[in-house]
Amino acid sequence: MTKSPASAGPVAPEVLADLAAASHILAAQGVVDAMGHISLRHPDAQDRFLMSRAMPPALVTPADLVEFDMNGDACGGDTRSGFLERFIHSEVYTARADVMSVVHSHSPSVIPFGLCDKPMQAMFHNAAFVAAGVPVFDIRTKFGTTDMLICDCVRGGALAETLGDKNVALLRAHGSIAVGDTLQAAVFRAVYTEVNARIQHWALALASGGPLAALSPEEGLLADEPNQGAAARAWQLWRSNVRAKTNW
Amino acid sequence: MTKSPASAGPVAPEVLADLAAASHILAAQGVVDAMGHISLRHPDAQDRFLMSRAMPPALVTPADLVEFDMNGDACGGDTRSGFLERFIHSEVYTARADVMSVVHSHSPSVIPFGLCDKPMQAMFHNAAFVAAGVPVFDIRTKFGTTDMLICDCVRGGALAETLGDKNVALLRAHGSIAVGDTLQAAVFRAVYTEVNARIQHWALALASGGPLAALSPEEGLLADEPNQGAAARAWQLWRSNVRAKTNW
Amino acid sequence: MTKSPASAGPVAPEVLADLAAASHILAAQGVVDAMGHISLRHPDAQDRFLMSRAMPPALVTPADLVEFDMNGDACGGDTRSGFLERFIHSEVYTARADVMSVVHSHSPSVIPFGLCDKPMQAMFHNAAFVAAGVPVFDIRTKFGTTDMLICDCVRGGALAETLGDKNVALLRAHGSIAVGDTLQAAVFRAVYTEVNARIQHWALALASGGPLAALSPEEGLLADEPNQGAAARAWQLWRSNVRAKTNW
Amino acid sequence: MTKSPASAGPVAPEVLADLAAASHILAAQGVVDAMGHISLRHPDAQDRFLMSRAMPPALVTPADLVEFDMNGDACGGDTRSGFLERFIHSEVYTARADVMSVVHSHSPSVIPFGLCDKPMQAMFHNAAFVAAGVPVFDIRTKFGTTDMLICDCVRGGALAETLGDKNVALLRAHGSIAVGDTLQAAVFRAVYTEVNARIQHWALALASGGPLAALSPEEGLLADEPNQGAAARAWQLWRSNVRAKTNW
Repeated sequence: MTKSPASAGPVAPEVLADLAAASHILAAQGVVDAMGHISLRHPDAQDRFLMSRAMPPALVTPADLVEFDMNGDACGGDTRSGFLERFIHSEVYTARADVMSVVHSHSPSVIPFGLCDKPMQAMFHNAAFVAAGVPVFDIRTKFGTTDMLICDCVRGGALAETLGDKNVALLRAHGSIAVGDTLQAAVFRAVYTEVNARIQHWALALASGGPLAALSPEEGLLADEPNQGAAARAWQLWRSNVRAKTNW
Repeated sequence: MTKSPASAGPVAPEVLADLAAASHILAAQGVVDAMGHISLRHPDAQDRFLMSRAMPPALVTPADLVEFDMNGDACGGDTRSGFLERFIHSEVYTARADVMSVVHSHSPSVIPFGLCDKPMQAMFHNAAFVAAGVPVFDIRTKFGTTDMLICDCVRGGALAETLGDKNVALLRAHGSIAVGDTLQAAVFRAVYTEVNARIQHWALALASGGPLAALSPEEGLLADEPNQGAAARAWQLWRSNVRAKTNW
Repeated sequence: MTKSPASAGPVAPEVLADLAAASHILAAQGVVDAMGHISLRHPDAQDRFLMSRAMPPALVTPADLVEFDMNGDACGGDTRSGFLERFIHSEVYTARADVMSVVHSHSPSVIPFGLCDKPMQAMFHNAAFVAAGVPVFDIRTKFGTTDMLICDCVRGGALAETLGDKNVALLRAHGSIAVGDTLQAAVFRAVYTEVNARIQHWALALASGGPLAALSPEEGLLADEPNQGAAARAWQLWRSNVRAKTNW
Repeated sequence: MTKSPASAGPVAPEVLADLAAASHILAAQGVVDAMGHISLRHPDAQDRFLMSRAMPPALVTPADLVEFDMNGDACGGDTRSGFLERFIHSEVYTARADVMSVVHSHSPSVIPFGLCDKPMQAMFHNAAFVAAGVPVFDIRTKFGTTDMLICDCVRGGALAETLGDKNVALLRAHGSIAVGDTLQAAVFRAVYTEVNARIQHWALALASGGPLAALSPEEGLLADEPNQGAAARAWQLWRSNVRAKTNW
């Protein structure tokens, strides 16, 4: 049994409340159901992150948040069970110094894009971050026949490598991840990846083989700038909805 | 009039509450509407099962549960009307000693897979149990033109034979059944059969004739293992939602 | 100005409450939105029917119900405005002595079947009444370019003629009607016409040109029998949901 | 820094409440999510309009409404931030003296019609206003690669030119606008543009290449007349739902 790593220190209650609220937001927006998770890099330590113990996202409270190190070990002697797939988070934080928050989800509209060769495209400006491209991670390529889970550092590292410098990636026959340089940006991208997927299903059926005038990569770059303001407004709405239903 | 068979004895209140809650969960998840039912094998008797009287699943309370024997007769002198299709349950329990719970439903996204020759495939790890294959029961094959209902032991037995050792089966122009070795596993499979069906509709449209990188049977076997933990978390969420709305 | 016809006499409060509740049920089930209506033939007079004044179905109370005669005139001196399309109801009651209740709605999933040459088929036993065929009324055929509304006896009569002895009919670029020999049967058919339409959209896409093993007309006849019990259970659920939200 | 233009004077509280309620209605009907906006021309001044400060529509109260002039400048010294895209509104009001209210939204079902060459058609009488045609504004045509936003008078003017005398227009890879000669008409059109889009997706898939018997332009003209009554009834329902949840 490994010794628990030291904690990087306490985190402000409002930060913990926002992270717990983000779980509720993702559930309310249909991005996660009984499964899925979101994490936040520790505000004071590049090599620590916060994430709920293994539980349904819609039930998370600030007291359920656990600090992990980049090996996926719970810190400060915390003995609560983490998600099997916390290595998604630890390895993305390790590979991407700019990322402060990571979402993993299995939303039904997104999964199909990981199952066939139709790339996800940006259908509108709020999903501009999609225009840079959404890579697909197929666990079979490196690991053969598996239980599909990112349950250790090696698999997590391979996924992070596939993500590269992008902000969304698909996992074949599994789901997707979205990242951001703030908690709000990661939540916004997870939500609008799902919305964009729904629009693209309809758009491709409508076009029935013809071309789609999706955002070009250049339009995507320009349009993603004002999304920061949009994400702030969306957070304002979603956070207030959670506040109305919780006492933390 | 046949004499009512003896009861196999009382069942713990928390077991009855969980079974009643399972009806509410299936309704809340869109698996059943005003119709559909779930049963549990009697914890102390292999030849008895518990199931609500004929009523909408969203209204079931523990007091509505009736004990049946494997002929579909209510036990202990209970005179309340059972569902016409309780023989689905009795015959699956008879044929499958490993099954502790059976769900029958008509969820709209699932029915199409019983109407044409496109087999249901496992779109993601939470539906791994689908990867073993989902047989289709066509009542016409043995019984010709009928009212479509599994309303006696003979029809129930034929359905159980089609199910074989699988955990999900489709009924042509009718609906589906899902089974499990626990109440929680059956509920989980019923819910994720529906979710998987929705994903497959989108995925096949997206692929427009091209291949789908669905779970292979081998991946399905491996991925179904960790679903037990997932099912426990899902149950935790769904059960707590029912608890918040009921006083039992 | 025509003199208001005499009333056929008071109707039992519980019948009025059920009719008002039926409006709420159709709204809750997504069959009607801000538009659409349901009527009931007067229990004591073959030539009178009850229907709300022109208002959103989700707001109807028993006090909003008006008695009409078969010319669509409000009885007993009632001066409240009826729906422009009350002639759908009066003419179906005139043509069909067996019909006790009529629903008219514009549910989004149903409208497409009135816009192209793909006939609605019965996808499962709860929609067995569809297997007899669903005729399409195109107002252009007899009336040329119109405002699409069934706003007088002549147009209503033409629609009733198209309905014939069926229980559901489509109105091109408009919506549909469903009828029953009880209030509960009409509501059940309106709801399951909508559910069946959704299933058929998915099923046809899934079959992508191949055949659908829909209910045969013979299966439909047999399967519609037990739907009376199903409709009673559905009504029990839906009516109790309305009761929980109203004080009548 | 420009001087704030003078206000055209106070607006009746019930008008402000209706405008704030319209934001909530559009959110409740799924036309807007965390983004999108609705405005009303000032009842007493052709060259002023009212619109919320930049915030989620579901949170707007009458106190959040700001008066703008046709340059998009806040009047009466109001220093609150307006939406970047308020120029959609100012330029439509400038170009169209008959328009009293403008909605801008990104509803997922509508966006696809701006991404390919399938024109939106009127699927039923409540969407009769669509039968006149729905032009598509592609910002690339005049402005090349942009951030997609209508963030100044020049872009707003180009959009208003594309709208012409129609009541709905699409913005490529962005969303749509709907206008009306009353607040209620604009809301009604925004809602039924969304409903019509959903129906058309289903209808085109159902027809699979065959023709759709959509409303002809002539039918559309006739059918749009009674929609004023329909819009009044819809407003009655939607407004009462907002009233039940707010204290203004």
